[in-house]
Amino acid sequence: MNNRPEMNAAAQGFSPADLSVQPRHAGFTTLLRAEHRNDLDGLDIALVGVPSDFTVYINGTRFGPAQVREASRMTRLVDFETKLEPFDMCTVADVGDAPVDPLDLLHQNELIEDFFSAFSERGIAALAVGGDHGITLPILRALGSAHRGLGLLQIDAHPDTFDEFLGSSDNHTTFVRRLVEEEVLDPERIVTVGLRNTLWAPDQLDWAREQGMTIISADEFFEIGVGAASAAVQAALGDGPFYITLDVDGLDPSEAPGTGIREPGGLRYRDVYRVVRDLWGRQVVGADVVEVCPPLDPSAQTAIVAANLAFQALCALASARHR
Amino acid sequence: MNNRPEMNAAAQGFSPADLSVQPRHAGFTTLLRAEHRNDLDGLDIALVGVPSDFTVYINGTRFGPAQVREASRMTRLVDFETKLEPFDMCTVADVGDAPVDPLDLLHQNELIEDFFSAFSERGIAALAVGGDHGITLPILRALGSAHRGLGLLQIDAHPDTFDEFLGSSDNHTTFVRRLVEEEVLDPERIVTVGLRNTLWAPDQLDWAREQGMTIISADEFFEIGVGAASAAVQAALGDGPFYITLDVDGLDPSEAPGTGIREPGGLRYRDVYRVVRDLWGRQVVGADVVEVCPPLDPSAQTAIVAANLAFQALCALASARHR
Amino acid sequence: MNNRPEMNAAAQGFSPADLSVQPRHAGFTTLLRAEHRNDLDGLDIALVGVPSDFTVYINGTRFGPAQVREASRMTRLVDFETKLEPFDMCTVADVGDAPVDPLDLLHQNELIEDFFSAFSERGIAALAVGGDHGITLPILRALGSAHRGLGLLQIDAHPDTFDEFLGSSDNHTTFVRRLVEEEVLDPERIVTVGLRNTLWAPDQLDWAREQGMTIISADEFFEIGVGAASAAVQAALGDGPFYITLDVDGLDPSEAPGTGIREPGGLRYRDVYRVVRDLWGRQVVGADVVEVCPPLDPSAQTAIVAANLAFQALCALASARHR
Amino acid sequence: MNNRPEMNAAAQGFSPADLSVQPRHAGFTTLLRAEHRNDLDGLDIALVGVPSDFTVYINGTRFGPAQVREASRMTRLVDFETKLEPFDMCTVADVGDAPVDPLDLLHQNELIEDFFSAFSERGIAALAVGGDHGITLPILRALGSAHRGLGLLQIDAHPDTFDEFLGSSDNHTTFVRRLVEEEVLDPERIVTVGLRNTLWAPDQLDWAREQGMTIISADEFFEIGVGAASAAVQAALGDGPFYITLDVDGLDPSEAPGTGIREPGGLRYRDVYRVVRDLWGRQVVGADVVEVCPPLDPSAQTAIVAANLAFQALCALASARHR
Amino acid sequence: MNNRPEMNAAAQGFSPADLSVQPRHAGFTTLLRAEHRNDLDGLDIALVGVPSDFTVYINGTRFGPAQVREASRMTRLVDFETKLEPFDMCTVADVGDAPVDPLDLLHQNELIEDFFSAFSERGIAALAVGGDHGITLPILRALGSAHRGLGLLQIDAHPDTFDEFLGSSDNHTTFVRRLVEEEVLDPERIVTVGLRNTLWAPDQLDWAREQGMTIISADEFFEIGVGAASAAVQAALGDGPFYITLDVDGLDPSEAPGTGIREPGGLRYRDVYRVVRDLWGRQVVGADVVEVCPPLDPSAQTAIVAANLAFQALCALASARHR
Amino acid sequence: MNNRPEMNAAAQGFSPADLSVQPRHAGFTTLLRAEHRNDLDGLDIALVGVPSDFTVYINGTRFGPAQVREASRMTRLVDFETKLEPFDMCTVADVGDAPVDPLDLLHQNELIEDFFSAFSERGIAALAVGGDHGITLPILRALGSAHRGLGLLQIDAHPDTFDEFLGSSDNHTTFVRRLVEEEVLDPERIVTVGLRNTLWAPDQLDWAREQGMTIISADEFFEIGVGAASAAVQAALGDGPFYITLDVDGLDPSEAPGTGIREPGGLRYRDVYRVVRDLWGRQVVGADVVEVCPPLDPSAQTAIVAANLAFQALCALASARHR
Repeated sequence: MNNRPEMNAAAQGFSPADLSVQPRHAGFTTLLRAEHRNDLDGLDIALVGVPSDFTVYINGTRFGPAQVREASRMTRLVDFETKLEPFDMCTVADVGDAPVDPLDLLHQNELIEDFFSAFSERGIAALAVGGDHGITLPILRALGSAHRGLGLLQIDAHPDTFDEFLGSSDNHTTFVRRLVEEEVLDPERIVTVGLRNTLWAPDQLDWAREQGMTIISADEFFEIGVGAASAAVQAALGDGPFYITLDVDGLDPSEAPGTGIREPGGLRYRDVYRVVRDLWGRQVVGADVVEVCPPLDPSAQTAIVAANLAFQALCALASARHR
Repeated sequence: MNNRPEMNAAAQGFSPADLSVQPRHAGFTTLLRAEHRNDLDGLDIALVGVPSDFTVYINGTRFGPAQVREASRMTRLVDFETKLEPFDMCTVADVGDAPVDPLDLLHQNELIEDFFSAFSERGIAALAVGGDHGITLPILRALGSAHRGLGLLQIDAHPDTFDEFLGSSDNHTTFVRRLVEEEVLDPERIVTVGLRNTLWAPDQLDWAREQGMTIISADEFFEIGVGAASAAVQAALGDGPFYITLDVDGLDPSEAPGTGIREPGGLRYRDVYRVVRDLWGRQVVGADVVEVCPPLDPSAQTAIVAANLAFQALCALASARHR
Repeated sequence: MNNRPEMNAAAQGFSPADLSVQPRHAGFTTLLRAEHRNDLDGLDIALVGVPSDFTVYINGTRFGPAQVREASRMTRLVDFETKLEPFDMCTVADVGDAPVDPLDLLHQNELIEDFFSAFSERGIAALAVGGDHGITLPILRALGSAHRGLGLLQIDAHPDTFDEFLGSSDNHTTFVRRLVEEEVLDPERIVTVGLRNTLWAPDQLDWAREQGMTIISADEFFEIGVGAASAAVQAALGDGPFYITLDVDGLDPSEAPGTGIREPGGLRYRDVYRVVRDLWGRQVVGADVVEVCPPLDPSAQTAIVAANLAFQALCALASARHR
Repeated sequence: MNNRPEMNAAAQGFSPADLSVQPRHAGFTTLLRAEHRNDLDGLDIALVGVPSDFTVYINGTRFGPAQVREASRMTRLVDFETKLEPFDMCTVADVGDAPVDPLDLLHQNELIEDFFSAFSERGIAALAVGGDHGITLPILRALGSAHRGLGLLQIDAHPDTFDEFLGSSDNHTTFVRRLVEEEVLDPERIVTVGLRNTLWAPDQLDWAREQGMTIISADEFFEIGVGAASAAVQAALGDGPFYITLDVDGLDPSEAPGTGIREPGGLRYRDVYRVVRDLWGRQVVGADVVEVCPPLDPSAQTAIVAANLAFQALCALASARHR
Repeated sequence: MNNRPEMNAAAQGFSPADLSVQPRHAGFTTLLRAEHRNDLDGLDIALVGVPSDFTVYINGTRFGPAQVREASRMTRLVDFETKLEPFDMCTVADVGDAPVDPLDLLHQNELIEDFFSAFSERGIAALAVGGDHGITLPILRALGSAHRGLGLLQIDAHPDTFDEFLGSSDNHTTFVRRLVEEEVLDPERIVTVGLRNTLWAPDQLDWAREQGMTIISADEFFEIGVGAASAAVQAALGDGPFYITLDVDGLDPSEAPGTGIREPGGLRYRDVYRVVRDLWGRQVVGADVVEVCPPLDPSAQTAIVAANLAFQALCALASARHR
Repeated sequence: MNNRPEMNAAAQGFSPADLSVQPRHAGFTTLLRAEHRNDLDGLDIALVGVPSDFTVYINGTRFGPAQVREASRMTRLVDFETKLEPFDMCTVADVGDAPVDPLDLLHQNELIEDFFSAFSERGIAALAVGGDHGITLPILRALGSAHRGLGLLQIDAHPDTFDEFLGSSDNHTTFVRRLVEEEVLDPERIVTVGLRNTLWAPDQLDWAREQGMTIISADEFFEIGVGAASAAVQAALGDGPFYITLDVDGLDPSEAPGTGIREPGGLRYRDVYRVVRDLWGRQVVGADVVEVCPPLDPSAQTAIVAANLAFQALCALASARHR
């Protein structure tokens, strides 16, 4: 099978510039340089942008998908350490952006859930690039019609387990609690890594701990080391199907400065890479990379990190399908 | 005829997000929001990126096409003052980027000339977005097989009439002289608007004046006013076919800061708009907008100006075909 | 009367730093360096931030009030040309920010209308600093309980007369039409200055013209000159009470780059200053300065322009009260 | 006791926006979101900005207090790891900026010393946010009337032990030596952490070592690890009262890029957090966070780090008062 | 005579790169690409950097000379409109930076006055690049030993005629008044162009007008036009010797954003060029370009403007010596 | 011997500002603040800028030497940990920039090789600051006339062992292979540290491994630790002469963001410092620091890192000469 990016230039009399020899700054961009498609026929994995932007404080995530597509000029085809080649293992395409409604959050949640249901119904795995973390709610609701009691690996500086925020119950600060209540997620198979710094109240995490969620704070992570942390993640997730959500604010702001709620003292890219890589071959059913906020990082370093994280997540999805 | 941008979303079971209702930050971008095509069938006007980057001093124009595509989210369908609707007058598409070779300027010139010849041969008008001003040389060479003795409207801070530069004869500082020598351009129908500030030698413009070229310096432009300047441009171009090349450094750096060789005291966008608009309906055979240098303008203001200038140039090309 | 800014440092044993001798970079900031108050007693004019951010394309206006407060370190007490001293004519204070709801636009509209009703009810004139242009809708609804058939001076690149946008009828693209329908505004006394560049459809302005609105496009403005344009504005507004809304995108992006929908070819600050100054002494009942978008202008030049425009608007309100 | 930030909105007829439900981008800012006060009655801990800017090379620290106040929108109320709640332990307020004189360094030193004497005299602990490191000199002179022979924890890339610099003896490069000479500091209880890279002369640190100061270079810190380093700090400080001065250039420039004299190879935020946290409960008598230079970090990442460091220092001061 | 820049590369066995063919981004920079010299023998005009930085609000002018040197890569040898060639008319060199003392303004004033006295004593004209506007005080004091009652062309947004500021009498806000009092300047031959926006008090300009100074505000300038304004400048200066001081804040911030106290509504570069050019051939005895503040303009557009203004000032000095 | 920087100000009647007391922002800059020379007499080590810019994707390295010179204001004279003083051990000068040809890569390679041959022929060690990594090819070809079978320490994110790229065989992606083929380098004594993330093909490194090159990926580096990695580097290099090439993209982009092909997960500055420092006293014959790309890092943090790395490389060269 050969569906590698950039190798299929059509040639009907007129020859578009040959993208296999054009330098990387030329031509249109897609997520991870995958081919762009408007249909889903024969697709194993769909790459999707979700330009949602309902972050409550510093916003700008609506420009995340566009910046990650541009930063995808930097990624290649093969994982350096494992030699895994996801594009040779599965049919992968960028199917464009999910619909959003910047004037109505609840309407947007419906639009996104409907859009992702098309993937679930056809057995296509979706890898979403946000957008604020609120998109994980409708994406998992769409997955929830097929899967109940999913596990979750959440890389994040914040727990996102509020009951409501500014009078709204369905947003980027509440999605974990909602999905537990709706039984899409099994709280005992949720593991959150990277929490740190300050809380609004000392009992802010009580609900999460009561549900049986596993929390590895950034301090604990550095205390026990990446190997032990990765083992703890695997233990928490167990054997069933699970979802991966990578909030770039889980990383240290020095490595991922382009995100709205920056918390110093975070994880390293190479730590997150290691934790995710250790899950390749397990039963991953979907993934997202969220909270890339381009206005805070004009040099696009965060988007380059996000593109690499998306590549790792793609490896996870591809190896899950090859189990 | 209906080939307006964003109105043709395919729907075969899976529904891509409807770009007619998506907000403008969502989805892929093309030049002027035109549809993207990999073939030329039935096309009247081709929009083309040319990510060349052989500027001798401050470089970065290779990122020009990508930034202008992104800035094209800002342009719409109808000229405010004239109500001209170019997309209803002609079939227009973005056919991607011309091939470039960042390691070999002469090879690149051949690649670009070959690429644009495909348009000339089919009678398709090309509107190029650069890239450095050196791209005008191979583009006009490609046009030159069909047209000899073309007129030229050049908006520019610099004359680009050197005989050679750093030992090279075919580049962004020499293209006007080369094309006169090759008889692609008729020097008596060349008009250059916007020159200013400092020269390397007092006789630097003697060759141009000896050829009969018309030069309207920025100082003269503001002295006589935009109306008289526009009349002088029309008089110089006469009745025959001509080409339009818009170097954004002809504008004042306050309006177009993202360009390599910035010269204060330049033209206003609204002046250039007026001069170009006064040529709508005349025999324009091609056009380019060049020297957008994104690293110098992260806010993309120059690219927004360039996208609007490209829209004016498209109006010129569309009205020329409807003569 | 002495309520000049920075002259009232309290001294009860402990001496806070004396703001009349501190350099301008020191200390807290307020809009136009006015004193900060949490109550309205004895107030003539209230300065209010409205950090709304429901712009559909490039967002970030929620940071507008904070950046204009910071930029207010640059303004002083007396208009250079007229020697008008608004702080000696009226009691002025910054009363903080109106409530907003970034997750629910309709709820936010109610919050803002309620907040501004407190000023209307007490006969206090409000000068609002946005925030996106959608805030003018609830602000004028609040004024509308006291005033029907108001005139409007709108400086803007866009007409904001859509009937709906993305399914929403009450936002920054529709507010003029809504307020005409609700009879808060008298369309024959609305004058919009600065429209330009491109439209979505050739009939986009038909409704506005049918209502009798006066439109002075940027092209017309430069054609007739600032003196004639100012006279036309005064003629359109007539003698009754009117509101001033200054969208910074009416200005040229070279002077006000920090705004979401940038349109080259706009008005000059000194033109807007002249038009507004010519209205001092007339019956202005309220004013706003909107669409300052800090992420697009880290150097805060736009906010400095906005602070100066707010000072001109304050002069208008102060001289209106002294009629 | 309830003096948590943002919980005390006054309501006398007119209702200012309720800051407990407003989103974080709205409203005025203070250091750590504490309430603003113009008097000292009943205060335990005063937060103070000191916008001094006499750095000899890259300047801009005068904007430090303003940027840290803005970045304080990011901090919350409770330390994540320990659940310490400083605002429930002490009465804390932001009392504004100390007076400065940008045209006369010696005069400024007197102004600052006088200003901080008001806190010493009333037994109020001060937490200062600079400002260049020269402010530590007058602050400690003010403390010195009550305390002699204080210990000092200094996080810094540079020793600041010059005898004079450019003919001046009282500035950011000399303050440690001056305070030892004046016996405000006990050199055997001074510990400096983070020195690195290059020196002007090989004997530059001889004076410091002769005095008995403890120096833990960045290289040594990473060699021995944060646990051993923290123990060494505690050993050096001993049991008496001490002061904490946190120069953000002690951190690695990747984490704190906004500072004038950047030295790669520095400490991590989480290391500094750990060292400071291990001192909670000991006898801290004052603290400062200095050298935040906003022009070098428009994204304010350094100010966010500084706000978090200030929160840790506040925890230290609060727990010291509760001993 | 041949002392054109870049034509004198030494070649003693080892050949340094030939700067006459190197591209402009290569090699060391000097002001206006003049040769660098450490002695004054045979010099007609000295170019001098003065990295002073005692601006009271937004600082950073200490980096002005370095940024203008770098921006001098953009200037060439001949004025476009007049074909004047200053480097063929006079011997010109960049002699480096004057001494400064960032910790002691009064000491710095002495250092600068002494440094510039060396030029006066040898009959060398000095063209200074600042640095804040305070440098004009010691520069003119140095000139004052040879010249009394000089005229002054001041392009500026602010009058700089305070009697004192923050307790200091010799700084960038007071220099005009001081030099009038010291009789270095003849107030009736001072003309200030570009004042605008706001004042601290309505009588702020009374002293200046009482002295007989000519003030052309920005509003008046645009009202009467550049031709009449230039004539008024010449009339005010009369026939005697005069100095030119160009504060870049006299220009509009859209053209010169990199300056500390930005005032919208300012002059255009081409207006200032015209006014200065009209003085070529008159008795100019010295000049400066001040208040370039690089941290506010990382793209260096202001420095490019300043380099071009310095070139115009050089033409003025060169033509004055050739009278 | 005293050839310390900044200690040799000439004084012939006119006194240039004394750089030993001027603050660091004043005056011209050179690499590492060394003196500037146009001849090579008596020189041990030449510092050279090489403003080459043929990077295929994100360009801008032509501005590298200028930015590193400016950043050299930050370095001093003595290594903190070892007290090594390279300027007291050898005669060191900045001899300017090598010639480049931005329009012709092959011509440029000849120019650079000729320029560096002058150093080889006189036994002067060269320390080059790039410029893209392609400069190492002609520099080592120049060294190759004296040395065959050199060892190489390469810090890099990418192997640079392609056979050709875009039809070119002599560029920044192929230089290692070319120099092995030309027997300038002994592949068994090449050690490359820092490779990571993604490859174009799974067999991309086969050639390098077949040649016997040692590759320590970033993952392996962090797995084994800096001590073991440094030992492995020393073992690979053995006892003979070797060259050091430091590509700043070997470092993590959080520490060195200003480089064209950014790869997250890289080395730390302090790790590279340690590895290089462990080679002091060995037989280093030349060194370069490359791929500093200023447009991607306006704050110059990368250039500061590069200046410090250049200082470490200078220590290596100086201690090699003192063996």
